[in-house]
Amino acid sequence: MPLTNATAEQLPLSDITVVDLTQVIAGPFATMLLGDLGAEVVKIEAIGRGDRAREFSPYPEYFDTINRNKHSIALDLKSEEGQDVARTLLEDADVFVESMKPGRVENFGLSYEDVREFNPEVVYCSISGFGRDSPYEDVPAWDMVVQAMSGIMSITGTEETPPLWSGLPSGDLAAATYTVQSVLAALYARETGQIEGEWVEVPMFDAAISWLCARAGYTWGTGEPFPRFGTYHPSAAPFGVFEAADGSLVIAASTDSLWEALCAELGREDLLTDERFDHRDRRVEHTDQLGDELEASLAEATVEEWVGRLHDAGVPAGPIHDTKSVWEDDHVTQRGLKVTAERGERQDAQVIDHPIHFRNLATSLRVPPQELGESTDDVLAAHGYSDEEVERLREEGVVD
Amino acid sequence: MPLTNATAEQLPLSDITVVDLTQVIAGPFATMLLGDLGAEVVKIEAIGRGDRAREFSPYPEYFDTINRNKHSIALDLKSEEGQDVARTLLEDADVFVESMKPGRVENFGLSYEDVREFNPEVVYCSISGFGRDSPYEDVPAWDMVVQAMSGIMSITGTEETPPLWSGLPSGDLAAATYTVQSVLAALYARETGQIEGEWVEVPMFDAAISWLCARAGYTWGTGEPFPRFGTYHPSAAPFGVFEAADGSLVIAASTDSLWEALCAELGREDLLTDERFDHRDRRVEHTDQLGDELEASLAEATVEEWVGRLHDAGVPAGPIHDTKSVWEDDHVTQRGLKVTAERGERQDAQVIDHPIHFRNLATSLRVPPQELGESTDDVLAAHGYSDEEVERLREEGVVD
Repeated sequence: MPLTNATAEQLPLSDITVVDLTQVIAGPFATMLLGDLGAEVVKIEAIGRGDRAREFSPYPEYFDTINRNKHSIALDLKSEEGQDVARTLLEDADVFVESMKPGRVENFGLSYEDVREFNPEVVYCSISGFGRDSPYEDVPAWDMVVQAMSGIMSITGTEETPPLWSGLPSGDLAAATYTVQSVLAALYARETGQIEGEWVEVPMFDAAISWLCARAGYTWGTGEPFPRFGTYHPSAAPFGVFEAADGSLVIAASTDSLWEALCAELGREDLLTDERFDHRDRRVEHTDQLGDELEASLAEATVEEWVGRLHDAGVPAGPIHDTKSVWEDDHVTQRGLKVTAERGERQDAQVIDHPIHFRNLATSLRVPPQELGESTDDVLAAHGYSDEEVERLREEGVVD
Repeated sequence: MPLTNATAEQLPLSDITVVDLTQVIAGPFATMLLGDLGAEVVKIEAIGRGDRAREFSPYPEYFDTINRNKHSIALDLKSEEGQDVARTLLEDADVFVESMKPGRVENFGLSYEDVREFNPEVVYCSISGFGRDSPYEDVPAWDMVVQAMSGIMSITGTEETPPLWSGLPSGDLAAATYTVQSVLAALYARETGQIEGEWVEVPMFDAAISWLCARAGYTWGTGEPFPRFGTYHPSAAPFGVFEAADGSLVIAASTDSLWEALCAELGREDLLTDERFDHRDRRVEHTDQLGDELEASLAEATVEEWVGRLHDAGVPAGPIHDTKSVWEDDHVTQRGLKVTAERGERQDAQVIDHPIHFRNLATSLRVPPQELGESTDDVLAAHGYSDEEVERLREEGVVD
């Protein structure tokens, strides 16, 4: 996502406008990705407060990481005039993404039925914890509740720990990614003439469950819950975390050819004929002893040295970065995955590059993360409001 | 995803054919989702062995959970005739997804440059650990190595544990979801006439890093690595895992209104005026004491009782399911998220429903997870091979 010069012709969604009525992570991450792909995104936020993620002190950077490429408009949706403004924005929108508790958007006169009345071509996407028509329809969902209920926590941790949260907001991310792909699928179907418009429902709980995939397969095959295996693969070896001279690294060398390459690089060809380790099954069986043997050799050099040598030998291995050290990684710096978005008088924002590389198409960073209501005037002007009307709406507390 | 009767008109990708040369999780999960949306997917697998996930004993169900809606053809890509067959399949394919180590697909004469020579409209997607033009280009990536290198492990666990793997295959899932959305974006751009064809590169490492989102924001705001907080939110309370009479549940009631609703439901209005807990900041400050107070009351009933009562009161809460108990959850059974795909004489396959609900469009399960080469004859016949040719190719070990 160069900050630079992708042309509109290169952005696959440059003809698409999105109205975004979401907050925190799931919805904002999704509309950010649509924005990266070129869509013009207008983010409706509550007057005064805005997206709740703006409050997540001590780090406004939380908000910035998931809200580039959006124009913020501060709007009072509890007022009828505010709802009129929202309807005006939605009149020519291609996509509407909302993540209110089921029922609330209906109270604002912005249900799918309401919107398609005046915009039958809209692709309307509702993100919620459990979706309509669920026994939990009225239960507000948070990522960590969804992680607990979906089984994600149960597979995170070690045999010695209780179920733990995955550090990633996995429930939110599942909802976000299904939102993007469902909206894109609907836009494609609209373009081919298959549909006029569409309503897509994304239940975060169901989305998270779909990610269990092979973990569920384990249970269906064995009858047992998938275990928490922390740092050591239960059915492959060597495959896990090992100690070098100055810290830990991950090595995944469970196939015969990788095992041979690893032993060669460590100068430990003796292990190849050691009867404890001379077959994949025996390496798994003696995984602790294998770890001890490897660590005796790994202690001779640093993590950085070993990772370099193992990479050269084609053995999957890597350092264990934290969210600070990862930005110093060679690949990450060479790719420029941490991007600085200048904001004039405001402090620069840091964002993470869109990870995908197109050959002809492109993604881009066009709008840095905005302050609450930063584009209110511009968005209203673009939708035909005169300066006087905007002034009046602002005085009456409808917009800000 | 009813097994039933979605018509081709309802499937957004019913006009799309995909050739799939991927294995394990990332690629197969992506092409499965394209298949759910209606695409006709032909999965090329190595003769004899097939997708490596087929070997992951003791549970073939691993493979089944990520390989529905695909026709398996067993093909020897090391032979020139096998490569000819692949080119024939690719001649009229809309999408090609491959996840070979960079360089290998070129050796098979199936690089993007090769394919677009005879199919300029192809959307060609390459999934790899680090992508081309990376210092790690030649390093094979595994999900757990990517979890280590991207920072995902560093944020998973507790203060008392080392960095742990997230139970979900997060690196694979990140690559899978970006694959789907990038392919869909390219198909959309092709349909609007913006591009003729496209090459999309999905580096798993970069994809995983993009998912750090707000966790990276924390670091950029505070200068500190994001912590491992296991089961207890560090800056919200009550928000975490609590003990009831017969086990643990998650409760997330950190806003003032949810806190009041929780106390009312527990019959603990006394806590509202307790000076240790009468403000959000103080609840966080005294989070351990708060936990003790809540658990004194939670001990009076079971997890199931509390979750029902808290849900009725609109308080986010949930049981901690494992990968076995989750399928007994009320929502999961009511929605039918676990789907049985009958396979005639073979044992039924269990799969997880596609989580998204369209109003006009649909997803469907049309092809149960197949055995290696189950559709070889059908796929070849559909591409104009005569019975005699197929017989000869099989005898020569080119297909099976």
